[in-house]
Parts: sequence; structure tokens; C-alpha cells
Amino acid sequence: MPTRDAPGRVLAEDIVAPSDLPSFARSAMDGYAVRAEDTYGASEGLPAYLRVAGEIAMGSPADITLSPGEAALIHTGGMLAGNADAVVMVENTRQVDSSTIEVVRPVAKGENVLQIGEDMAKGEALLRNGSLLRPQDIGGLLALGITEIPVFQRVKVALISTGDELVPPEEEPKAGQIRNTNAYTLASLALRAGAIPIRLGIVRDNHEALKESAERGMREADIVVISAGSSVSTRDITAEVINSLGRPGILVHGVSLKPGKPTIMASVDGKPFFGLPGNPGSAMVTFELFVAPCIYRLGGHRELPQRYQTKAKLTRNIPSAPGREDYVPVKLEERDGELYAEPVFGKSNLLFPLIKANGIAQVPLDRGGLSAGETVLVSML
Amino acid sequence: MPTRDAPGRVLAEDIVAPSDLPSFARSAMDGYAVRAEDTYGASEGLPAYLRVAGEIAMGSPADITLSPGEAALIHTGGMLAGNADAVVMVENTRQVDSSTIEVVRPVAKGENVLQIGEDMAKGEALLRNGSLLRPQDIGGLLALGITEIPVFQRVKVALISTGDELVPPEEEPKAGQIRNTNAYTLASLALRAGAIPIRLGIVRDNHEALKESAERGMREADIVVISAGSSVSTRDITAEVINSLGRPGILVHGVSLKPGKPTIMASVDGKPFFGLPGNPGSAMVTFELFVAPCIYRLGGHRELPQRYQTKAKLTRNIPSAPGREDYVPVKLEERDGELYAEPVFGKSNLLFPLIKANGIAQVPLDRGGLSAGETVLVSML
Repeated sequence: MPTRDAPGRVLAEDIVAPSDLPSFARSAMDGYAVRAEDTYGASEGLPAYLRVAGEIAMGSPADITLSPGEAALIHTGGMLAGNADAVVMVENTRQVDSSTIEVVRPVAKGENVLQIGEDMAKGEALLRNGSLLRPQDIGGLLALGITEIPVFQRVKVALISTGDELVPPEEEPKAGQIRNTNAYTLASLALRAGAIPIRLGIVRDNHEALKESAERGMREADIVVISAGSSVSTRDITAEVINSLGRPGILVHGVSLKPGKPTIMASVDGKPFFGLPGNPGSAMVTFELFVAPCIYRLGGHRELPQRYQTKAKLTRNIPSAPGREDYVPVKLEERDGELYAEPVFGKSNLLFPLIKANGIAQVPLDRGGLSAGETVLVSML
Repeated sequence: MPTRDAPGRVLAEDIVAPSDLPSFARSAMDGYAVRAEDTYGASEGLPAYLRVAGEIAMGSPADITLSPGEAALIHTGGMLAGNADAVVMVENTRQVDSSTIEVVRPVAKGENVLQIGEDMAKGEALLRNGSLLRPQDIGGLLALGITEIPVFQRVKVALISTGDELVPPEEEPKAGQIRNTNAYTLASLALRAGAIPIRLGIVRDNHEALKESAERGMREADIVVISAGSSVSTRDITAEVINSLGRPGILVHGVSLKPGKPTIMASVDGKPFFGLPGNPGSAMVTFELFVAPCIYRLGGHRELPQRYQTKAKLTRNIPSAPGREDYVPVKLEERDGELYAEPVFGKSNLLFPLIKANGIAQVPLDRGGLSAGETVLVSML
């Protein structure tokens, strides 16, 4: 694809600089291109006098070659004159007459000069296969004239919602019904991880309907996610359907995590398949912990992109149980230069705590909870 | 716009919950809906016996009303039966026969029940005007049936590159020429800040050409950015052109910053106008420090989005000068659970140090440098 359109995409080959950058010696300052030796010993009291042989125009080959005792007016980024090996800053010169300057400080060879290949040398490794392309990477590629690059395809994630109680957001729920929101929350998370979400809609709680939708997901996407209804019966159907689709099927059923305990992870004929719990908080936490890394791997990332995390001081105790990793929404607030995390308690079947929070704090597996005043690791929410 | 397409956009009104969520009392567990008082005193040794009046189907109105001594089978998310005020977890019951259960632990009124309005109460403030919409906010809006929302328009940023030495990336530079990269690096940064970049191309170093391009930027965009050539003469032209365009013109010319000292900030007939230095590092640092916050303000953000920052231990000294804020590219590396920042030194006219780095460390204004071992604030690069 065109390099200019590739920020946020993942590079699909190693890039080595095809040429030197810069390709000519450039001035790093406004001043005069000189032969360094002509300035040796120059001082305020005993300046070096140089004849100005001309001015080097920007963007043109330097058509001036210095003889001993000569200098050429040069601008930042200009090409060094022939025989010149340094640049005297304009601040260290004085104009004597139209064709003569005084140099009041000596320069060493190479001073104020950007040498050929100093930024990138021909053959130097620039970017590795699997790099997430950042603004500066786009600039670096284009600087070398690499205007087209191979990139990994964006990963497609099929999202299926199950539950007889679900109606689409635009419908008015009747008694006993609620609006489907997980499909949209998870689609937003998928987008943020660089994937293309494919919403397959709401499926009723029966084996045949779910199987049909899951098979469509297998055809159309690279990863299939079922956001299961939260009742045991629905979860059982999800597990049955996944195991009926292909080999090896379910790998993990249940994780030591709160929220998110009933998470299913499966591999169906080589395709990752997830059954996530239906509570909004559980669905978000498990998507970020398990599905997002899977998107990154399939998307070609050489390293998992850093989740934005920070450390903060807890304002209140968080209860937990040893042998279980807990995630609790928190509101991060800076007071007197220190970052505090205020837990936003609420059942994991509530959405509003996630909206009030701007972070999610992690209670490590081996801790039975965290106390107020302790430092806690917080991921941005 | 449709709420489902709005992640990453900025909300343009206060949102108050138009109805209670949930709109009916729901079970938070798989179990039996009961009248709590019927379970008081129940224990393993002396269970309460309840008659099972039926099963509450998911997604349907609960058509069962409990008489004293009755229970109804219920699934997580199901609507509470009439007269029921609590749910007994299935784990705390035993089936006696097809129509009778034993309850071996009492429940309090409201236990395992999600009350009407417990997530969001009608009239409760949900999101404020100017909120950046995150995945969970999209979910919250859709849960309440808010399927269309007003959002701020994306800010348009015109990008002009000046310099007689510049050629487009697809051209082979001749002697003295280099490829234009800032327009693309800055466009990527603008995109990341939520703006729409408009590249106006390369302009020669003369007053008329630059003025014409700047006027086009004023017509087509909300913010105009000139990435100026790095020589003094080019910068002078930029300043003259900005002041000739409208009032009040230049507000700031030069900041105590390295790289980025010759930055120009201006207001032209109410429109923000920037002249950024042409070196790749300077252009990136000044865009992030000055242009991005301007994009956020014009884009309606109530709060500046948090820049992702972290603290790390410096591995080497960074020289600076008091009275100047320095930004130095660093490579962040975790060793033994501690984060270290290794400075990637290099002139600010080089691109490669920015590509090798993954963070940029800040040397505060009042410090004459930082020593190895000191803690430094690092923004992700």
C-alpha cells in the first residue's frame, strides 16, 4: 500500500536503507562553508580573513569549489561547497566588505556538517518486519523514497451476541428484554486493536441458530467471538457449538479471573474462537486480556503493542481472593503531583461503573486483595 | 451521527439517562426467584421447602406471581417473578422432587437482584458535552436506546511545507535536494489527534507563493501549519507572510525549548496558525506540544486527552541548560521489573534517532540537565 496511508498498519518485511541519507554533505547551520584549516587559530583578537566566493542556493548542486582562503555563504540544509569540510556559524563571523569576512572562532573538520549517510547509511536496518508504523516511521520510509510497502492485512473479528433477552439498540425492549450492547463495545475495542469488526447480530439461545452463525463467522473472519448470554444454559450451548465445529475445539474453559471467570478459549481448525461472558465488564476485560493479543499476533505485530499502564496509589481497600486475578474499575486523579486510583465499585453486570472510570486496576493473582495506600497497576480504560 | 460509528469522536451535548437501566428487576444469578422472608433461618440442617411455581423464560415478561412458600426457576438476566424480592443461587438449593426445592441458606431482600435503575437511573448524568467516546461509552449510550448523537466535527489541519530543497517523496532528489517528509509525519500526528490533515504540498521559498498557499489553508482548514525550511531566511518569510494575512498575527516567536526554539504561534482572524521548524525532530515535538492541544480544544474536548506518559530511570546523563525545556528521544526497556530510559542522542535534524526510540524524555525547564539514575518523565513516541 502507499506508505503515506500506512500509519497504524503493520509492516510485512524488513526494511534496509536503499541509499545514504543525506545523499550529500549538508550544512546544519546558517553560516559559511569553509576549509576548516583556514580557521585554525582564529579569535576575536586575531580573526581569520576569508574571501567569499559566492552563495550556495538551497536545493541546487553546490557549483562553488573553495580555494585556500575562501568561504561560501550557506544556509541550513544547503549542500557543502567543493573542498569545504566545515561550516562556521554566521554568529561567529563579521562582514568586512562585500567579498570578505572575518572568522572569530575556529571550526574543526566536520563541524556543523551533516555527513553523507549520517542519518541512515545505505544497507542499515531501518525497520523490522512486524513493526507497527508510527508517524516517524512513515517519515523515515518516505525520506528514503520508499513510497510503497507491504503490510499485514487487518484481522477480521466476527462478533456474535447470544441471548433470548437481547434486542437491537434501536428497538424498544419489552418487559424482560434488554438492548444488545456488547457487540458494539467489543467492535470498538477490536477497531482500537487495529482489527475490522464484523457484527453478525443477535442469535437466539439454541444450538442450531448459534452453530449457523458461528459457521458464518468461521467463513468470514479470522477470529470468532461469541459474547454469550450470562446464564449457565447459554454458556453450555456455546461450549457445545464450539466443540461441534472442528478440532481441537475448547482449550480453556474457565479462568482464575474476576470478572471473566467463565471465559472459553478454543481453536477450531486453526482459527481462534472465544466465548466471552455476557456481562459488560466481563466482556471488556476478557476481550482486552485474551482477544486483543490474538489480534496483534495474527496482525503480524512483532511485539505486543504496549498497553498504556500507569502506577497509582489506591484510595480504598480492594477485596479479592488469592489465586484469582481481579480487575476493578478506578477513577485516576492527580493530587499534589501524585496519582491516586479511586475504586468504582459495582457489579460486573453494570455498565455505568465502566463509564465513570478511566482506568482498571489489577489485583495480582497471589494477593488476597490490596489495601488503601498500596501502589496498584492501572490500565487505561 | 449513528452512535455505533462514534468511537473516538467527541460528544457535543450532555447526555442524561432518558430511562431507567435496567427497566425491570433482573436476576444477577442462575437460581430461584423467591420472597426473601420465606428463606429466613434456612440452613443445611433445617432447609426451607419451597414449591416451584414454574420457570421464567429469558426475554419474556415474568408471568408468574409468587404466593407465600413459592419459588420460580430463573436464569441470570431473567425478569423477577411478581412478589419476588431476592434470588437464591442454584448452588444453595437442592431439588427434592419435580415441584419442590430445599433452600439451605437464607437470602436478604434484594440479594442477587439488579434493581430497576441500579445501573443508570432516569435523569442521571451519563456523559458530558466534550467527552471523547470510548468503547464503554458507546455501549452505555446504546443500552439506553440513544442510537444517534451530535458530535463535534473533526478539525481540519492544513499542512504546508516550504523549502527550495524539497521534492515530493516519489521523486529522486538531485544534488542539493531532499525529500519532503514532515508533511507526512505531521499528517500522521494530526490523524492520531483526531483531526483531518490536508496536505497543501511543497511551496517555494518566496513571499507570494507561501502567501497564496497560506490563504488556501485559511479557506480550507481550521488550523494552518507551515513546516518551515530550517534556514533563517525561510523562517523570516514565514513570519512576514503570517503577519500579512490578518490580525493579530504572530503571538509567540521563539520558545525556550530544544528542539523547537524557532516555533511561531499566531492567530490570524481567529484562526490558529503555526510556523514549525523544519527539522524532523523539532517538527514532531512542537506539533505534539502546541498543535495537538489546539486540535483538542477546537475539536470540543472537555479535557485534553491524557498523553501516555510513564516514569523511567535514566541510564545516562542528559545535558541541558536551565531555562530551557529539552526533549530527548529515549529507548524504554524493562529490566528486572524496572523501566529504564536509554537516551538516543542525535542532532534534531536526523530522523533515525526518532525511529530507534520509543519514547521522548523531558528535561524540566529549571534543570541544567539530568543525571544517570534520575527518574525522568517519558512520553510515548
